[in-house]
Amino acid sequence: MTEPTAPSTVDPARALRDEIRAGRHTTVTTGLAPGYLQANLVILPADWAEEFASFCAANPKPCPLIARSEPGDPTLPGLGSGIDVRSDLPRYRVFRDGVAATEETDIAALWRDDLVAFALGCSYSFEAALLEAGVPIRHIEQGKKVCTYLTGLDTIPAGRFHGRMVVSMRNFTVANAIRAIEITSRYPRVHGAPIHFGDSSAIGIADIDKPEFGGEPDIRPGEVPLFWACGVTPQTVIEAAKPPFCITHKAGHMLVTDRLNEEFRQA
Amino acid sequence: MTEPTAPSTVDPARALRDEIRAGRHTTVTTGLAPGYLQANLVILPADWAEEFASFCAANPKPCPLIARSEPGDPTLPGLGSGIDVRSDLPRYRVFRDGVAATEETDIAALWRDDLVAFALGCSYSFEAALLEAGVPIRHIEQGKKVCTYLTGLDTIPAGRFHGRMVVSMRNFTVANAIRAIEITSRYPRVHGAPIHFGDSSAIGIADIDKPEFGGEPDIRPGEVPLFWACGVTPQTVIEAAKPPFCITHKAGHMLVTDRLNEEFRQA
Repeated sequence: MTEPTAPSTVDPARALRDEIRAGRHTTVTTGLAPGYLQANLVILPADWAEEFASFCAANPKPCPLIARSEPGDPTLPGLGSGIDVRSDLPRYRVFRDGVAATEETDIAALWRDDLVAFALGCSYSFEAALLEAGVPIRHIEQGKKVCTYLTGLDTIPAGRFHGRMVVSMRNFTVANAIRAIEITSRYPRVHGAPIHFGDSSAIGIADIDKPEFGGEPDIRPGEVPLFWACGVTPQTVIEAAKPPFCITHKAGHMLVTDRLNEEFRQA
Repeated sequence: MTEPTAPSTVDPARALRDEIRAGRHTTVTTGLAPGYLQANLVILPADWAEEFASFCAANPKPCPLIARSEPGDPTLPGLGSGIDVRSDLPRYRVFRDGVAATEETDIAALWRDDLVAFALGCSYSFEAALLEAGVPIRHIEQGKKVCTYLTGLDTIPAGRFHGRMVVSMRNFTVANAIRAIEITSRYPRVHGAPIHFGDSSAIGIADIDKPEFGGEPDIRPGEVPLFWACGVTPQTVIEAAKPPFCITHKAGHMLVTDRLNEEFRQA
């Protein structure tokens, strides 16, 4: 028998949140604290919360709900001890009447005792699984943002929430496209399998070469584009539903949790 | 407490095998004994058996080995009690020096004490899973044979066994194609996920409208063809390797086992 060994390093997710909370990290969380689940964030007043929860339940592919807080409570103990959603994301967007009004690096001054925080799964988790399986992802190789498009697909409305689905696109050889579908289907709580592949006009994408939300496609001969439901969808839905007040993460500036991606892999 | 209830009906797989053994069922097993795993059969002399086992191990998608017998033993107890591979399939093909010589409904007279039987997983299992999930399969709806093609893809050689892969094709809308990949990837022991979709010339299929092994494609606008590694592959490999003696099932005339398809679903 040997003595139990103390952990040699601080938990990397918590260490990153500490840096963010202290205001020393205000940029994207992409690729940081590898292996740890990152989440999209939506904060709404309590009188909009039940409808948003119903919207997530009706639209699990774009809005896979993994945690929600009690009204006024900025913690999410199910995702990590000591998480404070007011300070632990590098950058927030504040919406007033459905319009993105300001960006903040800390929302403590805006917090209210009727706010409810929702954490939604994020594609970073399945991207990690793809890379681990040897399936290359072009935009990551090129250090670019993922291409993200507004589609013509309506989400399923719930209460006052409605709007069109946003998708992210990743392109692969056919053999890797099959593997990407196989692998991501094992992660239903982080968007799961793609919703479409091939002809982008079939889902109402205006121009494959002009993503609405950044990125530059680089689709080569013999490759096929795959489209996944995207966690940016709630932001377009909020623009459509126009709640008086709402706060979200800024794209790429995620909540880094203490949970492992692997915990979200379906057996 | 109630008395234990005796089974109210005879096991349907065993009942079907009994009919086949008695010579009362000599046609295809397609759609019969639903829920029970059906298998491809390859019988080879013992001095070819280890090389064929290696070939299966190297090519698990076309040749997913689920059971093999001892030399001279016509039973496969792992697949069902009382199975006798000499009489329990409706129709056999007998190959001599790699050439299909005769068809038989019983091979007891051809049996030798050096023969080894191999059972390989069959796509009927994943087709059942697709139908159960509400994914329609055109050739089944139309009561036709599945379209099956010789490809330009080489299998991985093992010993004297080598040859090109045969694939079966099923066409779907894109949304159902994604579901079909998700579902079949859970059945790696019955061919698993498709090996290709889309452009058939990319895998060396000469003419999508002219399947080498029967069926008539009916691919409609917006649909995509998916190609699965097929259990007919061993028959083309036997034609190429030319063992002096070999017996296989005839396409569609399968070994019906006591095992449930669901047992072969990966968790």
